[in-house]
Amino acid sequence: DLPFFLIAGPCQLESLDHARMLAERIQAACAPTKTPFVFKASYDKANRSSLGSKRGLGIDEGLSILSKIRAEFDIPVLTDVHLPDHCAPAAEAVDVLQIPAFLCRQTDLLLAAGETGAVLNVKKGQFLAPWDMENVAAKIASTGNQRILLCDRGTSFGYNTLVSDFRGLPIMARTGCPVVFDATHSVQQPGGQGATSGGQREFAPVLARAAVAVGVSGLFIETHEDPDNAPSDGPNMIPIEDMAPLLSTLARLDRVVKDG
Amino acid sequence: DLPFFLIAGPCQLESLDHARMLAERIQAACAPTKTPFVFKASYDKANRSSLGSKRGLGIDEGLSILSKIRAEFDIPVLTDVHLPDHCAPAAEAVDVLQIPAFLCRQTDLLLAAGETGAVLNVKKGQFLAPWDMENVAAKIASTGNQRILLCDRGTSFGYNTLVSDFRGLPIMARTGCPVVFDATHSVQQPGGQGATSGGQREFAPVLARAAVAVGVSGLFIETHEDPDNAPSDGPNMIPIEDMAPLLSTLARLDRVVKDG
Amino acid sequence: DLPFFLIAGPCQLESLDHARMLAERIQAACAPTKTPFVFKASYDKANRSSLGSKRGLGIDEGLSILSKIRAEFDIPVLTDVHLPDHCAPAAEAVDVLQIPAFLCRQTDLLLAAGETGAVLNVKKGQFLAPWDMENVAAKIASTGNQRILLCDRGTSFGYNTLVSDFRGLPIMARTGCPVVFDATHSVQQPGGQGATSGGQREFAPVLARAAVAVGVSGLFIETHEDPDNAPSDGPNMIPIEDMAPLLSTLARLDRVVKDG
Amino acid sequence: DLPFFLIAGPCQLESLDHARMLAERIQAACAPTKTPFVFKASYDKANRSSLGSKRGLGIDEGLSILSKIRAEFDIPVLTDVHLPDHCAPAAEAVDVLQIPAFLCRQTDLLLAAGETGAVLNVKKGQFLAPWDMENVAAKIASTGNQRILLCDRGTSFGYNTLVSDFRGLPIMARTGCPVVFDATHSVQQPGGQGATSGGQREFAPVLARAAVAVGVSGLFIETHEDPDNAPSDGPNMIPIEDMAPLLSTLARLDRVVKDG
Repeated sequence: DLPFFLIAGPCQLESLDHARMLAERIQAACAPTKTPFVFKASYDKANRSSLGSKRGLGIDEGLSILSKIRAEFDIPVLTDVHLPDHCAPAAEAVDVLQIPAFLCRQTDLLLAAGETGAVLNVKKGQFLAPWDMENVAAKIASTGNQRILLCDRGTSFGYNTLVSDFRGLPIMARTGCPVVFDATHSVQQPGGQGATSGGQREFAPVLARAAVAVGVSGLFIETHEDPDNAPSDGPNMIPIEDMAPLLSTLARLDRVVKDG
Repeated sequence: DLPFFLIAGPCQLESLDHARMLAERIQAACAPTKTPFVFKASYDKANRSSLGSKRGLGIDEGLSILSKIRAEFDIPVLTDVHLPDHCAPAAEAVDVLQIPAFLCRQTDLLLAAGETGAVLNVKKGQFLAPWDMENVAAKIASTGNQRILLCDRGTSFGYNTLVSDFRGLPIMARTGCPVVFDATHSVQQPGGQGATSGGQREFAPVLARAAVAVGVSGLFIETHEDPDNAPSDGPNMIPIEDMAPLLSTLARLDRVVKDG
Repeated sequence: DLPFFLIAGPCQLESLDHARMLAERIQAACAPTKTPFVFKASYDKANRSSLGSKRGLGIDEGLSILSKIRAEFDIPVLTDVHLPDHCAPAAEAVDVLQIPAFLCRQTDLLLAAGETGAVLNVKKGQFLAPWDMENVAAKIASTGNQRILLCDRGTSFGYNTLVSDFRGLPIMARTGCPVVFDATHSVQQPGGQGATSGGQREFAPVLARAAVAVGVSGLFIETHEDPDNAPSDGPNMIPIEDMAPLLSTLARLDRVVKDG
Repeated sequence: DLPFFLIAGPCQLESLDHARMLAERIQAACAPTKTPFVFKASYDKANRSSLGSKRGLGIDEGLSILSKIRAEFDIPVLTDVHLPDHCAPAAEAVDVLQIPAFLCRQTDLLLAAGETGAVLNVKKGQFLAPWDMENVAAKIASTGNQRILLCDRGTSFGYNTLVSDFRGLPIMARTGCPVVFDATHSVQQPGGQGATSGGQREFAPVLARAAVAVGVSGLFIETHEDPDNAPSDGPNMIPIEDMAPLLSTLARLDRVVKDG
């Protein structure tokens, strides 16, 4: 019943300076509530809706920036991996490897990630039930790596819509793995704008409050200083200036639930 | 930003003594948190999964019991109506008429209920989107009755399963109507046990916490002293002895959210 | 393995002359394929999305027109009923009583309809699984009336969308009841245009072909001489002039499937 | 409006002899209807529900067997690829590369597959709407390869269930790509048996008939001489001895629809 930790950062890594600025501002937002902070950013958006969307800086420059953030801020860093042979180099630069939702059933990726010994944050596929994640965790655990986080980022509900089933959080917790709720991807509207995904940014704090009241080990929130002009996931990111007041509310809800 | 009120009671009215016993125990559970309490019970279960299931005491005996509970305990009482010509007599015996989810689009029932001038609690159909409730409320408001509560009791998600989409609560609140979350029907598994509906009682407090953290005007919870042997909805009712500790947690969450 | 029958007509009864005109044109469209024809029209649209939409001629004038159509054309006629006390008078004017999808769990309506002895066409609720209809049919059969048709008109799939699950047709057929597929309501987009329901008329023939290839006893198709200006369900009705070529294709598919 | 082609074979490649036996029996089943036949088998099941399930022969032995089948039977052969660097070697051994549904948004895999110049069969992700496939096809077409098949294998519908939305076939056809319906994976129940996926084999012919009546360029059907003992997807494969009579019915439905 530890206070929740926060995985936060921009969707896409833009530059070292940009990453520094956001890490600093998120760290400041976390300070009043002493919320443990893991910096998150992606070096490659490997599954954009359409080819015209920006993919990112690539693995070499990306990992270089992330390892600098880790060193400068002395905080854990997370990034997502998409191919088995990216796991080892990524695990040298960051502390947490994230398995994207679409890839959470790809055995080779799970095993390669598990074998690095890094902490893994596995997003539940939008096409899976919460209880299906037990088999996913077991694949990873077969490598001897038990440092597994399971993360809910919404479930397919009709077309171009996700729904967050909060029964899923305690169901995934039955695996013994810490459970994380991804409040910003859960309000995504996949493919909802034709060639890009839409989002309902206004509901991200709503779902974050609900998840904390249900009881979670961690929250995942993408944030940006100018979401409307971010290179990806702008429609669902929370503006950085909203983070501190949101964390204040969430920390108080967390204490109510965890203090019983 | 008033504290939430509680609509609670057994699913089905069993007898005057049973209603008295439960009203007393719920009132006691609400006392420590000063939670405003509306007693709820049904005199007729008009849409049971199968004919073999118990329907209840009927309108005459049922309304007689409900009006006695109202007088003895000096509390508002709610019951559900299924036919237009039941609205007027029901509105003499109780304070709140409830429109069942399956019937929330039946114009004649909505108008007859509206015309009584009673407060109405309209359950959102499992087949409707939250924004569809604006038209439902407008039908009622056309009678001059603006005392409308909108209540979420889950949305169809595949077969024999409901999901609670918590984005729906703020969306329904845009109508200006107070929004209620029904924590026990939302964990129903309609038809999930063949000839009766199943339920996941263990998730009712989970979803109740989430709803309060999102922010609601009221909660709807069915409760019983022996859910496993209740004549209806046993699988999803909360045992009466669990109500006081649950309300304690919920009241503290409510204060966090409403105090900002 | 009889050829399929067709239940067809306008959504809403407009006038005796209009009903005559459509009955005549549908009868002509059915002639080349010798498709048995049941005329369908509603005297009251009791669950329109919003109050501003037209409800229809009412029960007295409506039943009077329907009984004239039955006598003049010597064809069976179907209408839908919404309240228990409408069943007996409706059963004197028409041959088939239809239970609307939203009302398919209302025990009193099912029993009142069953007791008339009329053939009943029960629409599967959008919120039910196909196997749930066994309990619905059993409620009716308890009256001694075994003349029950079960009709699929789509299942809730996310918000404002229906999906037709064609596994449901053989599942409902396990009850022993003839199964009907409603090709025009299945392409409805409930609430999809704000205050009215939208529709995807272009897919009605597509789903009708699929249903016949799966194997059905009957098809339900709403049709109109000017769907864009019809008082209800215009977006999903098939223009009357398209009926004859559609029936020609469907009859040939039906023979392939039923001749084995 | 050519007659439909058939992509068929076992889910998993078991041995050269087994592949030969099935290719021969499918070829024989296709002969009476002159149905064009593409042999399908997987050398690696890269996303099994759990680690305990068999993965297959691996890429080297698998491609060697597939190229022998292609040469011996003089038929096109299809296999699925899971990583970008498998595309080039696979494209030397087979004629059609298949993109698995979970991977249909992975840009690098789509580009690598497209660059081989092979025909690609892209399964629609269970989490995508049919119209989302336009962006998927555009990613491939950016390589200059326009030989793209789009294949429906069901859409997420609640938990552990897929539904086939037959409106999706004409919607995907608007891209100009030939559309294939996968009749055996569409009746899969993902994760429905705990550590493995279940299936409803009895509905595969039902959905195949529906798809042909809607109008498709191709059908995808997995088949086996002993589905109950197959190393994967047994619950949804069609027994090989049922293929000839099924193809006879399907070919006649196809003629009705395509002859107008």
